[in-house]
This record gives sequence, structure tokens and C-alpha cells, in this order.
Amino acid sequence: MAKFLSIFTMRNLLVLSLALNLSLIMRVFFDGEKQGFFFSAEQRGPSMAEDKEAHATQRTLQSVSSSSGQEGMEKVINLDHGDPTMYEKYWMMMGERTTVVIPGWHSMSYFSDVKNLCWFLEPEFAKQVFRLHRVVGNAVTEGRHIVVGTGSSQLILAALFALSPKDGSEPMSVVSTAPYYSSCIGSCLIISLQSYPVMSNHLKSGLYVWAGDARSFNKEGPYIELVTSPNNPDGFVRHSMVNRTGGILVHDLAYYWPQYTPISSPADHDLTLFTVSKATGHAGTRIGWALVKDAEVAKKMVKFIELNTIGVSRDSQLRAAKILEVMTNTTEIGSSDSGESFFEIIYHLMAERWRLLQAAVNNGSMFSLPDFAPGFCHFLQQETQPQPAFAWLKCEDDAVEDCESFLKGHKILTRGGRSFGVSPKYVRISMLDRDINFSLFLKRLSIIQS
Amino acid sequence: MAKFLSIFTMRNLLVLSLALNLSLIMRVFFDGEKQGFFFSAEQRGPSMAEDKEAHATQRTLQSVSSSSGQEGMEKVINLDHGDPTMYEKYWMMMGERTTVVIPGWHSMSYFSDVKNLCWFLEPEFAKQVFRLHRVVGNAVTEGRHIVVGTGSSQLILAALFALSPKDGSEPMSVVSTAPYYSSCIGSCLIISLQSYPVMSNHLKSGLYVWAGDARSFNKEGPYIELVTSPNNPDGFVRHSMVNRTGGILVHDLAYYWPQYTPISSPADHDLTLFTVSKATGHAGTRIGWALVKDAEVAKKMVKFIELNTIGVSRDSQLRAAKILEVMTNTTEIGSSDSGESFFEIIYHLMAERWRLLQAAVNNGSMFSLPDFAPGFCHFLQQETQPQPAFAWLKCEDDAVEDCESFLKGHKILTRGGRSFGVSPKYVRISMLDRDINFSLFLKRLSIIQS
Repeated sequence: MAKFLSIFTMRNLLVLSLALNLSLIMRVFFDGEKQGFFFSAEQRGPSMAEDKEAHATQRTLQSVSSSSGQEGMEKVINLDHGDPTMYEKYWMMMGERTTVVIPGWHSMSYFSDVKNLCWFLEPEFAKQVFRLHRVVGNAVTEGRHIVVGTGSSQLILAALFALSPKDGSEPMSVVSTAPYYSSCIGSCLIISLQSYPVMSNHLKSGLYVWAGDARSFNKEGPYIELVTSPNNPDGFVRHSMVNRTGGILVHDLAYYWPQYTPISSPADHDLTLFTVSKATGHAGTRIGWALVKDAEVAKKMVKFIELNTIGVSRDSQLRAAKILEVMTNTTEIGSSDSGESFFEIIYHLMAERWRLLQAAVNNGSMFSLPDFAPGFCHFLQQETQPQPAFAWLKCEDDAVEDCESFLKGHKILTRGGRSFGVSPKYVRISMLDRDINFSLFLKRLSIIQS
Repeated sequence: MAKFLSIFTMRNLLVLSLALNLSLIMRVFFDGEKQGFFFSAEQRGPSMAEDKEAHATQRTLQSVSSSSGQEGMEKVINLDHGDPTMYEKYWMMMGERTTVVIPGWHSMSYFSDVKNLCWFLEPEFAKQVFRLHRVVGNAVTEGRHIVVGTGSSQLILAALFALSPKDGSEPMSVVSTAPYYSSCIGSCLIISLQSYPVMSNHLKSGLYVWAGDARSFNKEGPYIELVTSPNNPDGFVRHSMVNRTGGILVHDLAYYWPQYTPISSPADHDLTLFTVSKATGHAGTRIGWALVKDAEVAKKMVKFIELNTIGVSRDSQLRAAKILEVMTNTTEIGSSDSGESFFEIIYHLMAERWRLLQAAVNNGSMFSLPDFAPGFCHFLQQETQPQPAFAWLKCEDDAVEDCESFLKGHKILTRGGRSFGVSPKYVRISMLDRDINFSLFLKRLSIIQS
């Protein structure tokens, strides 16, 4: 039996792996040809001089607005969700280094690490999370427990569950500063609390209740304040607004990475959330993590995730661990020289997209964008501009009351200000879609303003 | 660039795949040697005559109780959770056929299938679910929508959310017939509703509330009845108990597979739940699915999962799809001849375990097990005995009031009757642990009774 098996396994594995090789190689070639593999050196060069930049921007915009008339104009561009498909190209460039191989008999048990407070946390994932934060310098990890979640939305719910007293006479108030994030892709909690009175509170929970904009919150007693920084949708750095005794803070730092904002110092809070979706672009993997100071709070979050989904996919954690490992590797080892540094490459890609968007907006007077102050990024060791994952665009034209509907008329789907508790003159636009859609978006903005 | 990449990719992939081959082969050899690879033909032969069976059982029991004194007697055996690690050996035997390979740039988007009602359902997973049910004949799939979940516990919550009116004057009653299932590994909802008054209802939901044993439920108005069949913990086939107008049924058929119970006919209900954990043993993958007749109910379940975790890991769905595919393949193609049929092999393994357990229990008078009636299994085309994933053991000794504590004194961790709403004379014991632990368990039962 064993002998038969060994021969069988060896021969078939080899055929399998050769077939795999072939398909991977074909895939890389095919996608490379189709998409014009990665951006050119000119587009991404960190040493690009200002005038060269301006020239390139102008040329790109000209080519965008003049290119073959109605091409692609029928296509609806969905920039409503923050689907981070822009990142596919980077990982394609990295080839097989982030490929995960999971044999059928691996990771079958419910348990990842029975000795850990978070028994469903894969040790390798925990290791890579700590390593990444140390290299990037965006969060203090010493003395923190990691709680892994099925995306950060599950972790927000787990945090609210953990931080709300179970025997309170009334539900705990949950606040955030407007514009606050919404959506069902991005985080559903707030919109479910805020926009759907019938569903208010998702499950009509008696533990916590949405209490609106932190700026106008004046109820006595304990409360939880969600601080999203950089903020979704407007991209500004945020701090606690209520700042009163009895307040518990949950920091959602999904976008506190060098490609989006200057890393000013390591975040040092009681409960901080991150997600793979926004850090690496792997949204379909559904992995987020919390850094939690208080072991009792961490235990309650673990209990919530037990009750909710009995842990978190081990396969996804292993995949995420591999991706974070490679990401950190490219950053540690002579990053600039190899031209592979994840954060440098994505930073320059985002910078290019923001430059193009600013130029398109500045070509007319119909739209405006927020003004961001630059800051020193301790990771990139230079002054950088915030370049958020969403553009918070305002329709300045008096004739346009509802910017979302206006853009929808031009086949651009966005999310309007009302979803975030503010004026419908604003829309949130994803900056993380694939090149083709981002180009079409710029082209339509140019046409609208011409 | 493309040329450099192709050379790089090809050479490195080959090295990678050869290394992979080597490690897989070593793994199979190593584990095979360590664990006495798979069970022998004698143990699993379906054609084994009754007297041969009795002989083998007796011999195994003798070897179990006489073997080297205190060997392993210090080890705590945890049979509290239904961790299905018994299945590892089967998948090891199947070698690389269920290995999944996921390149870093695959499945990055949130969306699996934007045109599907369940936009986060991987089409390949849906295909394999339908195919498996058709081959096994345990569920009608025509006219059903599949909703995928992060394990079936998330789907139970999604079903309760979908079926409870959002504007009801009071929460919807949820009932089940005692003994009903509990745990945080298995399904946490019920114990959280039933055993923790403070946490009652997980999030103190205003939408639904646990209303106890279906047998004694006599409240007017609408209700949801959870029907688990075969039942966890006792293994009996179950039907609705309340049977009144206004009742909505949710069928949890996690154990309705040929290895556990005769497949009498395809289940044909409004809302039926299954999970990979119990079907294939891949608990760490956290994948379950619901077959839902009413599109509106399916949409509400999808909405719940959006709000809760923004979809379900695509990596895990792809892995589950591959495993279900191979499982169905072994069943379709000359299964008996190849000796690889998943259901036949696992059926005989479970039969052997139950035979050994029955013999160990019958060797004294301290314990008893339920009496099951055999039934005709349309899948295996023969009369079969129920052989549940859990043994529902009763301590018959008058001196033992609390069977869980009694067994804990012998370093066997189980879950007592109180957790299931019945007498502490009962315990639930996992039958799905690895061979080594199952053998130690039998040995200790023999010692207790000797």
C-alpha cells in the first residue's frame, strides 16, 4: 500500500506541478499582455522631477480625454465600493512568491493554537503581523494581544460586544465623527445603524445603539467612540472628538499605511483595528486583526467570534501570513534597490493617481477635492502628501444638488454624502480600482468639465 | 521585463514544485509510518462476516485494555468538541488530489459572482455542492438558492435574522427539541441563548429570543423551530415537534451524510443547512451552505452576512470546492472497485468505531448507549445502522450523578447533559477524534468497568 502510494504520489505530483507551472506562466503572460504589465518606470519613479511630473500628467490627461471618442463610454464604472483590485498587478509582478499551497489534510481542526488566548489565531499569521508593524512603524505591538477576525467588520462588532456592559440598564451609545464610514463593502455597521431605522442596530441589539455624530453627542454616561484615521470617506487624520470621562475608544486604522498617509508615529491605543483588504488589497480573503491591550477585552472579542463564526478560516490566515511575509521582505531587504518594495511602489502608484485626479478636477470649476496638509513619513523618511483610498469629491456647481445622481448620469457609480451623514453635494469615490476603470473615470471627468 | 519574468517564473516554479513534491512525499511516508497508515482491509471490509467482526472486535478490545499498563494514562483526552480530526487520514491517503494552489494575485476582489443573488458565492463551490447532493441523494437542489456562510453557525444566525420580522412588536420565539445542540464548537447560538442568561440572545437581539424546548412550547403566534437531524447530541432522526400554523422550520442537516445515518430520501425543505466541517472534516476551513427555496429569504441571509463579515473567504470556498469535487469523484467513478470511495471508507471506519464502543460499553453495566433502529440507505444500497458523530453516553451507575465530572476524573473531557437541557447523567462524546485518542478512550472505559 505504502509503496503503491509513494509511486503514485510522486508521478502524479510531478505532472500536477508541471501543469501548474505551465498554467501559471501562461497566466502571467496572458494578463501581462492584456493589461500592459505594470506601470512604466517613468510613471513610478520616485526621483521624477516636478516639471517632468507635470509634463507626464498633462500628457496622460491629454491621451485620456482625446483617445478614440466614445470608447468605453457605455460601460458603467462602479467606484461605489472600495474594491482594491488595483493591487492585483503588484502581486502578479511578485509571481509565485506569494503562492500558497495547502494539501487536503492540512489545517482540518478547528484549533490553530490551543494555548493562545485567541485559540483560532494561526501562529504564523500572528508572527507576520507583529513583524510588519515593527518594520512599518505604524503601531505599537508590545504588550498587545492579537485577535484575528473575518475582516475588520467582524472585529468592530466583536469590539462593541466586548466593550458594552452585559447588564447595563440601557444600551451603550456608539458615536463617530461625521462624515463617518458606511457601506456594505467597507463596513456595514454604521449604515445599518444610521440609515436603516428598521434594522437599526443590525440585530436590534440591547447591548449597544448608534448615537450619531460625535460632535453633537452630549448624552451623559459611558459611550464608545469609533475613530477612523485616516478617515473613510474624507481621508483626514482623526482623533477622538468627545473626549469625556467614561468614553472607550476603538481606533480603526485600516488606512494607516504609508501608501495612503504619512506615518507620523506608531499608534499606541487600547484597541486598534487593521485589515488585510486595505493593507495588501486581498479583500476576498476576509482577514482583519485587532491589537488589544486588555486581555479581558481580547477574551470577550474571542468569545464573540466563537459565537458568531466559531473562529476564522485557517486557510485564509495562512494565505494572509504568506502575503504579509513577502510584503515585509520586500520592505526590509534593500527595498529601493530591488525596485520591489511594496510600500514604495504602491505609494508612487497612488501619488500618480492623485496627481492625475487633481489635474482633471483643476481643469474646470465643477468639482473640488479636500486640501490635505503634508506630513513627515517616518517610514518613507520624507515629507509626503495624504493620498487616501477614497476621493471625497464635492460638486461645486449650483445646479447639482445630488452629486451621486449627477455622476450616475455619466455612468460613474459613487456613494453620496447622505450615506455618511453629510450633504449630498459630496461623493466618495474609490481610488483603488483597476487601471482601466480609473482611466475611464478620469476621461469622463474631463468630458463633463469640457 | 516580460522575458525576465518568464524565465524567473519558470525556473523558480519548477524548484518550488519539486520541493513541494518532496515535502509531500516525505509527509505521507512519515505520517504513514507513524500512524500505521490507514486501517487494514480486515477492519474495513464491507463483506466481513459477523463472526469475523466479533472476533476482530474482541481482539482489538483485548489489545486495547491489556496494552502496556499506564501507557498514555496521564494524557487528557478532549472529546468535548466535535473536532473532526479523524478525517485527516483519508485526505492524506488521497495525496495531492485535494491540494489547492492559490497565486498571490487571485481572488483579491470582494466579489465572487456579481450576477448571483449571493454575490460572494464562488461559482465553482456552488457547482460542487449541487453535484455532491445529486450523487449522494440527501437533498433536493432543484429550485434552491445556495447561500454560503462562514461555517453553519453564521448561517443559523443569518436564517434567524432573515426569518424574524423586522417590525414585530416582540422578538420571534426560537425553539428546538431537547436534547438540543450546544457548544462553542458545534454551534454556539443555543448555549449562548440557553445557558448564559446575561448574554441571552448573544447580542440581546430584539429580533428573536430563545424560547426553550419545542416539546413544551405553547406560546401563541409565529415561531422558528430548529430541527437538527440526525440530532446533535443524541443522533436520532428528528422531525418538527411543534407543528403549528405560523411556524417556520430551519433544518440543520449537518450530519445527514451516509457515514452517519441511512439516507432515506432527499431532504426537501424550505431552508436546509449543511457544513463542510461534518461532511468532509475540514472544520478549520469554516465553510457551510444553505439551500434556500424562497429568494427573498436568501437575499436577507445574504444581507446578514454582508453586515456581519462582508462575505465569506474566497480562498476557503475554493479549497472546499476542490475537496467536494474529489469527494464526489471518488463516489462516482467505480467507487467500490478503486477502494477510494469517501463515503464507503468513512462509513466503515465509523462502523468499526461504533462496534468497538458498543463492545466496551457492553463489557460492564456502568454505561449505556441509545438504541438505534436500522434503515435502508439509498446511497449505499443496503440497510445501515445510525452511527452518529457523537456518542450520547449515559452513566447508569446510581453513585454517579454527574457523568461529565466522573469521566473528567478519568481524564476524559466530554460535555454533560445540562448543556443540552437534560440530565447530567448524560454526556456527549466526540466519535471523530484521531485514532490514538479514540483508542485511549476505549481503554479507559474498559479500565473503569473492570
